[in-house]
Amino acid sequence: MTGVPAVCVIGLGLIGGSVLRAADAAGWQAYGATASAADAEAARSEGFDVAADVDEALRRASSDDALLVIAVPLTALDTVLRQVARFAPHCGLTDVISVKGPVAAGIEARLPEAPYVGGHPMTGSSVSGWAGGSAELFQGAPWLLVTEDDTDRAHWLRTARLALACGAEVVAASAREHDAAVARISHLPHVLAAVLASVGSGGGGLAMSLAAGSFFDGTRVAGSRPALVQAMCEGNRDELLAAIDDALGRLGVARGSLATTGSLAATINHGHLSRTQWIESKTLPTGEFQVQFLDPDAPAELRALGEAGGRVRTVHGDVLRGVLPRRD
Amino acid sequence: MTGVPAVCVIGLGLIGGSVLRAADAAGWQAYGATASAADAEAARSEGFDVAADVDEALRRASSDDALLVIAVPLTALDTVLRQVARFAPHCGLTDVISVKGPVAAGIEARLPEAPYVGGHPMTGSSVSGWAGGSAELFQGAPWLLVTEDDTDRAHWLRTARLALACGAEVVAASAREHDAAVARISHLPHVLAAVLASVGSGGGGLAMSLAAGSFFDGTRVAGSRPALVQAMCEGNRDELLAAIDDALGRLGVARGSLATTGSLAATINHGHLSRTQWIESKTLPTGEFQVQFLDPDAPAELRALGEAGGRVRTVHGDVLRGVLPRRD
Repeated sequence: MTGVPAVCVIGLGLIGGSVLRAADAAGWQAYGATASAADAEAARSEGFDVAADVDEALRRASSDDALLVIAVPLTALDTVLRQVARFAPHCGLTDVISVKGPVAAGIEARLPEAPYVGGHPMTGSSVSGWAGGSAELFQGAPWLLVTEDDTDRAHWLRTARLALACGAEVVAASAREHDAAVARISHLPHVLAAVLASVGSGGGGLAMSLAAGSFFDGTRVAGSRPALVQAMCEGNRDELLAAIDDALGRLGVARGSLATTGSLAATINHGHLSRTQWIESKTLPTGEFQVQFLDPDAPAELRALGEAGGRVRTVHGDVLRGVLPRRD
Repeated sequence: MTGVPAVCVIGLGLIGGSVLRAADAAGWQAYGATASAADAEAARSEGFDVAADVDEALRRASSDDALLVIAVPLTALDTVLRQVARFAPHCGLTDVISVKGPVAAGIEARLPEAPYVGGHPMTGSSVSGWAGGSAELFQGAPWLLVTEDDTDRAHWLRTARLALACGAEVVAASAREHDAAVARISHLPHVLAAVLASVGSGGGGLAMSLAAGSFFDGTRVAGSRPALVQAMCEGNRDELLAAIDDALGRLGVARGSLATTGSLAATINHGHLSRTQWIESKTLPTGEFQVQFLDPDAPAELRALGEAGGRVRTVHGDVLRGVLPRRD
């Protein structure tokens, strides 16, 4: 690729709007479109390059050979993919949707020939839509890129350059590994928060009057917009079912132990150890790594680094450099 | 009661140490004792009146007719009750332990004749022991007092005066109502946090690397000292089993719905509504109430006010005044 790279963002909500701003700030030729008239108007009023409609943006992306970023909810994906198939069928694609297996399946069905690398920037804001975004939203945040053995290497590198240009750090995983991980650390927490909020309110006015810190924290994400939470969780059905089963099993063991022996030691000690190790892992010293991404084993090597907490911070040619925690 | 009221606090950890400080600051004749040499030394060095040992403090309380506050962990209760039975068997008793049914049963077994009103100040600190406490710890916090139909009215009023002198607001409930409520809003959150932390860490390094806000909040209390959490949860076994069963049932329903229909709408919407109503209930306008506590129906009336979120703020003679949320 020579000259200024081009990126076309479809969907200008919190994440898509932030990609447009951050890529623009990093010197990419960045433009986009959205089905939301309010978001389009807001983006234009701030001086961003927003096409009249999605079809127009896609035609332009096709002639520019822009990197296409799909930043719409999973429920709108198929509609957008039909438009892409019609107006920009040869563009390289990525997306920022919070599940990866179902998106890959959708793209395989509609655009089997298009180069595609799935993405998931792990960041957010309590304000949704264009108004909640910013060029700085991705600074230092992990941006997961799906990295399979048969991933199109050149397209992966181009997508990684976008993520890094936006200020993020790239984490590699397979789609299945990603979906299993986020089921445990993002989707299950939302389900448990909803369950806890309901059990608490089932205790009536006295329970609600006495509830404080532990209930506040444990139910916080139950305050998120239900439609968004529902779409996110339901979109990752298979992996979330496995995570719920794990939680049901552990909660059942706790129940059985408390009922028969009166002890919750195993449950509480294991939970405490898990939480403590996680908190400590954030402050481990880091070591550096380097990967030649065109080497045959590079995807497997990068996934192993991702599993060990590694993050890519720079790409030069096909040389990736990054850091990972060192357990000395 | 005439003159300066006396209070003797057994156990000078976070809560007991704060009761000693707050009662002293409010002008009560306040003294105490603890089996912890470190806490005793720290309290004495700050000028508080700390007896050489628990036996000595109890002898003094017996001659003063002091209100005895038992502020030791549930696991140390029986040891202290044996000492009370020997050295101060006629003193009026209260306690600040986080379950009420088991404490009432313990006192019924060792001191069936002593006037007793169970208490539970709902506050805390991340620092335990004397060092974590302060005279201001109870300001505006709910302080639950067990209020049964056969509660000793004069002793209840004396205990309420102590709670109010410490800056707290008194909430009335039966022991069973209290234990059922805290199982749902305090003990279950600790069990769910432990389960979530363990399910997350079961996802390995990638899951721990990607975990952020929702996992952080949902597992926060799994960072608490395991021995304290275990004692608190195990001490409320019967009610916690019921709360866990409620959670297991709701989580099982969510699992079944997701597996069969693909929908989590009912779970997520109910959780959202519960959380939202709870948050909103904190800002409802308040109305005032007044109860003559020597009236025959007063305990039932106060419990109904407690269930509606009512809190007693003053006691004059047997007249209680307080506030409760108004749902206009």
